[in-house]
Amino acid sequence: MADIAILGHGVVGSGVMEVIEGHRESLFERAKEEINVKHILDLRDFPDLPYSDKFTKSFDDIIGDDSVRIVVEVMGGLHPAYDYVKACLESGKSVVTSNKELVATKGAELLRIARENNLNFLFEASVGGGIPIIRPISQCLAANDVAEIAGILNGTTNFILTKMIRDKMDFAEALKLAQENGYAERDPSADVGGEDSCRKICILASLAFGHHVYPDEVYTQGITEITLEDVGYAKAWGGVIKLIGQVKMLGNRKLHIIVAPMFISEESQLAHVDDVFNGIMVRGDATGDVVFYGKGAGKLPTASAVVADIIDCIKHFKARKYLFWEDAKPDYIEDYKLAKMNFFLHINTPDKEKTMRSLEDAFEKVRRVIRDNENENELGVVISDVSFAELDEKKAHIEKDGARLLGRIVISEF
Amino acid sequence: MADIAILGHGVVGSGVMEVIEGHRESLFERAKEEINVKHILDLRDFPDLPYSDKFTKSFDDIIGDDSVRIVVEVMGGLHPAYDYVKACLESGKSVVTSNKELVATKGAELLRIARENNLNFLFEASVGGGIPIIRPISQCLAANDVAEIAGILNGTTNFILTKMIRDKMDFAEALKLAQENGYAERDPSADVGGEDSCRKICILASLAFGHHVYPDEVYTQGITEITLEDVGYAKAWGGVIKLIGQVKMLGNRKLHIIVAPMFISEESQLAHVDDVFNGIMVRGDATGDVVFYGKGAGKLPTASAVVADIIDCIKHFKARKYLFWEDAKPDYIEDYKLAKMNFFLHINTPDKEKTMRSLEDAFEKVRRVIRDNENENELGVVISDVSFAELDEKKAHIEKDGARLLGRIVISEF
Repeated sequence: MADIAILGHGVVGSGVMEVIEGHRESLFERAKEEINVKHILDLRDFPDLPYSDKFTKSFDDIIGDDSVRIVVEVMGGLHPAYDYVKACLESGKSVVTSNKELVATKGAELLRIARENNLNFLFEASVGGGIPIIRPISQCLAANDVAEIAGILNGTTNFILTKMIRDKMDFAEALKLAQENGYAERDPSADVGGEDSCRKICILASLAFGHHVYPDEVYTQGITEITLEDVGYAKAWGGVIKLIGQVKMLGNRKLHIIVAPMFISEESQLAHVDDVFNGIMVRGDATGDVVFYGKGAGKLPTASAVVADIIDCIKHFKARKYLFWEDAKPDYIEDYKLAKMNFFLHINTPDKEKTMRSLEDAFEKVRRVIRDNENENELGVVISDVSFAELDEKKAHIEKDGARLLGRIVISEF
Repeated sequence: MADIAILGHGVVGSGVMEVIEGHRESLFERAKEEINVKHILDLRDFPDLPYSDKFTKSFDDIIGDDSVRIVVEVMGGLHPAYDYVKACLESGKSVVTSNKELVATKGAELLRIARENNLNFLFEASVGGGIPIIRPISQCLAANDVAEIAGILNGTTNFILTKMIRDKMDFAEALKLAQENGYAERDPSADVGGEDSCRKICILASLAFGHHVYPDEVYTQGITEITLEDVGYAKAWGGVIKLIGQVKMLGNRKLHIIVAPMFISEESQLAHVDDVFNGIMVRGDATGDVVFYGKGAGKLPTASAVVADIIDCIKHFKARKYLFWEDAKPDYIEDYKLAKMNFFLHINTPDKEKTMRSLEDAFEKVRRVIRDNENENELGVVISDVSFAELDEKKAHIEKDGARLLGRIVISEF
């Protein structure tokens, strides 16, 4: 029998109990041991559950119980989750977590402590909810050099953008609907500001390229400024707008990593990942592009990923899973402002012809895009092979003769 | 050092050598042992390779070498592959294979022998090429009851259908192009007849539901009869035609399993899996729908899956991987003719109104679909909630008054 403890009995924590209770037989068959949830830590009272006797308000009951060899952290947030997880690993307990903030900010340290103590620290549920992604990347890495990962990593923003694209809702309306449906929190800033996607691409980047990437090193732009006009231009260009987390290894062995809304071509697999779904593309030198698609959040999908990790922990009490990355490396992240990309620019101008001429003076490749019902003073252009830095430098050219830059959106290449 | 032998030096076999040579460092890091290819079995001569000294024409050199603990079978075909693999497992060697015919027809037996000898028999590359699918299903099974799997499992037919849909080529032209591009063999019957897809859905069904399903138990329809008219009707209906392998567990605990071209709604993730790509949807009770997408064949993708299995074998010399299914169970496969489905019928008739009236007499739900440039005598209808058996029974109603049934295509629900 494998005694485990669960820290937190919120959405994911109660889902973990539901999955364990509902799949006793198949879990036993895989793990070859029965999973016994011995303690559940939560400050709230849950008097009416069939397992109410398992609750405790004191972490000491768990850390002091030597029979507990696996601790499941599903509280979320950095403190006290970090302190508890660290204490567990230091006292010989393997840890499974769904906490992306924890992994994105403390992953390298916790992986090191786990390795020093010959324990597992697993976090399949931290990215992509129920989509298997951490394990496939980790396993396919052996026979592949990963060149790039790009994904729609946040369901809330993808729901909002889908509503803007399909139903012509503006951002505020779509956000309200997301909140009404329980897809967005009352304070939606971590989602719509891109922070959540940023944590997830940091975890994937750390895993795929071997050194920890911290969220504060990553240029992160959310979707709050995206307008229905932008959506219309994306359509005219031949695609849709999606919030993308992207990382790739450059020729100089530095990482290009950003989170930003991007124009995605209709041809791309990621263009058809809609509503609250996530989609993650992994480009390997041998496998080519592999895409993983599914529900990136939610009680049962996330819980099922947590439980799969618990099974893995039980089966690997002696042999550690290979899952590791080194701490951050200096000068590892390329300045995002230097990367050459294609951009869509949305401009307000009293004279479109004149503005087109100044753009053509300033940039080598300029192509106009005309959306349905374009306003009289509105100009949409695609500028190729420029960097954020060049766009900044040449802002005066763009805004010559009374023109005003309303927005700029990265155009993806995948 | 882990000594291995490779049976076969065709496309996949040479790809395995390429992946092993090209990723020495990362392979060592994962496996913690160096992979040493000691023997390669092939009847042909390869005098000019850097590893020409490893070749042998005699299987005895391999079976008799006790240092070889892993044998990689990438010859394809049933004999002698089956005999060799069985001999290896019986003499204490784990086996990795990419051979779908072998796994689909002999899987249960070989898994049993592997288990009896505490060895691994792994076959990630047999389905989906470089797409990780066997391992994720096997692992997510613990925390999920799989309800259904449906997939585009054959790249050749998907290429042909994509050409028919996008470029209005007919089947024969598209097949010819596929052959010219090396996507189809000179004798393309196993691909276009659905046999290859059938083997793959049998492997997935056996894995997901626990009992071996043999290809000859599965109703299999290929794409040779699909016309450009059908493609036009699929578009008018709101989707595309794809060759689908599908299996689901019914309420009576029997399996519904078929391979057939199907109408797939534009809304479905599988509708956008084009060209030589594969896409596989796995529906779990906790995860919901998860879709895996990528190159389902080809030298390096397939080889990379083989090499990932080799690593797993090396890491699990003592602890077997959990990968197993029982032998076939009597009365386990539901007669495909009994399942209620929706169908598209393509009819030639001298009097459309009259034929519509007989159809409405014979079936409860009949809906007309009109394609662009429909011919004068052409009628397309969707019939809901009927079985193959009922369609057969009522053929006389369909073909009343000089009408003729040209084709019937299953309409998918995913």
